[in-house]
Amino acid sequence: MEPRISIVTLAVDDLERAVRFYEAMGLERNSKITEGVAFFQMGGVILALWPREELAKDAGIDHEKPVAGADISRVGEKSYAGRVRSAFAGVALAYNTRSEAEVAEVISTAEKAGGRVLKQAGRAIWGGHQGYFEDTEGNLWEVAYNPDFPIDAEGRISLPD
Amino acid sequence: MEPRISIVTLAVDDLERAVRFYEAMGLERNSKITEGVAFFQMGGVILALWPREELAKDAGIDHEKPVAGADISRVGEKSYAGRVRSAFAGVALAYNTRSEAEVAEVISTAEKAGGRVLKQAGRAIWGGHQGYFEDTEGNLWEVAYNPDFPIDAEGRISLPD
Repeated sequence: MEPRISIVTLAVDDLERAVRFYEAMGLERNSKITEGVAFFQMGGVILALWPREELAKDAGIDHEKPVAGADISRVGEKSYAGRVRSAFAGVALAYNTRSEAEVAEVISTAEKAGGRVLKQAGRAIWGGHQGYFEDTEGNLWEVAYNPDFPIDAEGRISLPD
Repeated sequence: MEPRISIVTLAVDDLERAVRFYEAMGLERNSKITEGVAFFQMGGVILALWPREELAKDAGIDHEKPVAGADISRVGEKSYAGRVRSAFAGVALAYNTRSEAEVAEVISTAEKAGGRVLKQAGRAIWGGHQGYFEDTEGNLWEVAYNPDFPIDAEGRISLPD
């Protein structure tokens, strides 16, 4: 992994309501890609808003299912006894790669590092290549190759404009 | 808000385990600030790892409390019936400001835009100024003024090195 975060995707329950909020905050929605998603260019990073169901499905997560006992035990029974947590936190970070082959490499590195692969590298419905993993603490990362979102030498990603 | 995300903070249950994971991914932990937290410079953005309890407490969230019925109704009873969700997703985005006064301004803008203020602008335990809000979908943002983390003209933030 080069040191970058490409996209921060926030799950939303009401996309248009969320867009109104971020526009009222002074941000400008990308006008090129608007179908069922909202993108905001945030300097060299992209903020994405995506319906919760879609994001969870994309990552292979059942967002309505609470964390099972087995998962709760992972985070320490003592301090987390009685804690109830959805299996889906509602935020995904994306690391965008410079090549298609790199997606599988990063997913494989994450697995060796002790992460959990949720979706092996493969074709994404939007035409590119993607996979998903969780870090050791359950935080969600997508690894994606999307030639429509170019990455410069410094790792800054750009939406089409 | 200028278009930037300054810090992405991921909650961790075991800080050292999480650090080992991200180091194995090829990232380099900042060596200047290491007490109870881990920072990684990710281009113009900072990735932070912070124990779940600390992050939740900082944001004024009870991380062990499941979302109350009132909150579940906010996201639509129909599709979310039976859903159990922690009040704390475990991820916070930070928008760092260029001045102390800006913290209260952004928090106030978020409230007017329909967000929920979790912590009004005030002095932070680390010496700077901060506040927290949720967007309309429950996603968590910190607004912070931290002169130790300079922001350049393009909005890129830097850790001390």
